[in-house]
Amino acid sequence: MQIAPPGLKGLAVADTMLGSVRGQEGFFHYRQYDAAELARTRSLEDVWTLQIQGALPPEVPSLRPARLRILPEAVIELLDECARWVADPTIALRIGMLALGDHEGRGPLLDRSAEQIHGDAMRLAAVVPTILARHYRLRQGLQPVEPDPDIGHAADYFRMVTGVPAAAPAERAVEQYLVATLDHGFNASTFTSRVVASTGADMAGSLVAAVGALSGPLHGGAPSRSMQMIDEIGDPSAAAAWTRDRLDAGEKIMGFGHAVYRAEDPRGVVLREAAERIGGDLVGRAAGIEQEILAVLAQWRPDQRIVTNVEYWAGVVLELVGLPREMFTPTFSVSRSIGWAAHVIEQHGEGKIMRPSARYVGPAPSLGRGDAK
Amino acid sequence: MQIAPPGLKGLAVADTMLGSVRGQEGFFHYRQYDAAELARTRSLEDVWTLQIQGALPPEVPSLRPARLRILPEAVIELLDECARWVADPTIALRIGMLALGDHEGRGPLLDRSAEQIHGDAMRLAAVVPTILARHYRLRQGLQPVEPDPDIGHAADYFRMVTGVPAAAPAERAVEQYLVATLDHGFNASTFTSRVVASTGADMAGSLVAAVGALSGPLHGGAPSRSMQMIDEIGDPSAAAAWTRDRLDAGEKIMGFGHAVYRAEDPRGVVLREAAERIGGDLVGRAAGIEQEILAVLAQWRPDQRIVTNVEYWAGVVLELVGLPREMFTPTFSVSRSIGWAAHVIEQHGEGKIMRPSARYVGPAPSLGRGDAK
Repeated sequence: MQIAPPGLKGLAVADTMLGSVRGQEGFFHYRQYDAAELARTRSLEDVWTLQIQGALPPEVPSLRPARLRILPEAVIELLDECARWVADPTIALRIGMLALGDHEGRGPLLDRSAEQIHGDAMRLAAVVPTILARHYRLRQGLQPVEPDPDIGHAADYFRMVTGVPAAAPAERAVEQYLVATLDHGFNASTFTSRVVASTGADMAGSLVAAVGALSGPLHGGAPSRSMQMIDEIGDPSAAAAWTRDRLDAGEKIMGFGHAVYRAEDPRGVVLREAAERIGGDLVGRAAGIEQEILAVLAQWRPDQRIVTNVEYWAGVVLELVGLPREMFTPTFSVSRSIGWAAHVIEQHGEGKIMRPSARYVGPAPSLGRGDAK
Repeated sequence: MQIAPPGLKGLAVADTMLGSVRGQEGFFHYRQYDAAELARTRSLEDVWTLQIQGALPPEVPSLRPARLRILPEAVIELLDECARWVADPTIALRIGMLALGDHEGRGPLLDRSAEQIHGDAMRLAAVVPTILARHYRLRQGLQPVEPDPDIGHAADYFRMVTGVPAAAPAERAVEQYLVATLDHGFNASTFTSRVVASTGADMAGSLVAAVGALSGPLHGGAPSRSMQMIDEIGDPSAAAAWTRDRLDAGEKIMGFGHAVYRAEDPRGVVLREAAERIGGDLVGRAAGIEQEILAVLAQWRPDQRIVTNVEYWAGVVLELVGLPREMFTPTFSVSRSIGWAAHVIEQHGEGKIMRPSARYVGPAPSLGRGDAK
């Protein structure tokens, strides 16, 4: 029996053409394109097209998720009932996705054509902003805002949550956040979506499973925590002492350190640029605090290179544009659902169930009637 | 980079004390006990206790899921709305579990004590019969039947679905089905529950992800299909010709063949015994058809040993007791949720996220600004 490394670390469990992360170089890519560069130069719809269709516009026509954001009445009624009872927006999201898949007959991948599966991928990722925003506004006692098919996905998400159109710099910052977080190697949620898809299950079931993995605290990524930290520290001059106190208490510093990156997280770089374009007091403070924390961390662990991770500047960007903090983490699923859906399509193409083994380490079993065999 | 075998086949991705399958011997066990023997001699509650508490009664007190089957009003109202819009009972199940977890504050495993996690495991597995039965009856236009804490889990599931108490032989047959299908090595759904749990996510999210994997056609197990086949064949004298026709057409024979078992599936043995105790025309026909099909398969592939799998006799048993066919596959999640919950507890004890890698096989990425680094 072959034994996998703990946590499956470093073990290639699939082949992918969707992209990869080179942690040592601080580089990640979607297909053959530098992902940070895509975030700088392309629309979310273009990059969505790249991951689903395999090529960038104008090589292929850009996908138009616009009308796919509109929910059917059945799902709206269920979500409205859901808002009475369910607090967590990512649970409302999962309920909405499952109900939509059922309502629209988006059954097992194994029974669907390639074209239908592409349709499932587009539809189920496209409704994420609508479901999240509707649930958020209902819970706040606000009137839900219906999707507007005439604007981009990022802009419409912002509008449906806040109730007002985004200013151009904010709209672009949200879009860059979404492009930069659309996919990222083979993390636990992506892996989950692929294991479920490998059974031939439906798109909704695969994505819902991935949302579950993403909700795990060890999966990481709660940009609201790093904003809380920035609030708490206040001024950069207080950052070094604050950081040392936390390290002495054995605590982690939110927004710093990454499982894979040893060089600067390229997503953080893009998001810092986006923040700087918007500007304001918070940006300067965040940059100052970042430098102070990095300096303390370099002293504390001179042998390692602890870098700023995506969470830090993601928190700042989402705060700057004015998204409510309780929506920071759910916003991550707006983009990542697109990435998962692309992985589900790719995994389905493999046509093989992922069915590993385990090593039994308990007391030797006593055979009952089985003995006779 | 280490490359995993295709489908992760034969790769031990975890250590477990919960049990294992020895396919060559036609033997499987829960902890150190012969699982088929447990199905013959023990109540579902006893075996549930074994998997969650680690020992069989009377060594430890038997767990009492009885009152845990009762749903809170919030979940009932959501499920009632759900029944208006959602057809698939396993989707209603997932919606109910997610809503219950949220409503009762059963948050991330990482934030909960061992005692709380045991409570989550018991509660979320215990409500499966209630949710499934309620959805089924509402969809049929029937009055839902509330749980009865004074009877066993298997009996109460039967009662809540059919509206009438089970006769003693039927009750015991359902219970044996549930014990025999509670766990079974490291299949894709169990693996899924453990990957999600490894992120520190909540119990509901872990189980819901597993239900998604279970719904995949490649995961196997649709006992209603083998009953359809028995209906279609009718008399054993027609079975050989029917089977040859199907094989010639390149089709699979439902209820035969297994990924792991080369000797008779011990679950099938237990379920055939249960069917024989109930008796009747169907049992004799099913046994005759089984023999005819096995004979044709042995001729067709003399090099392999194709055996009857659990699906065949599971279908017969569930038909004999009078459960509706559309509930055959959902019934599987009544028992398997208990197994998954035990795996979630065990995985949480590992404290390590499962985060494998993938091998990028696309065109070499062109670095954008990343070049400068």
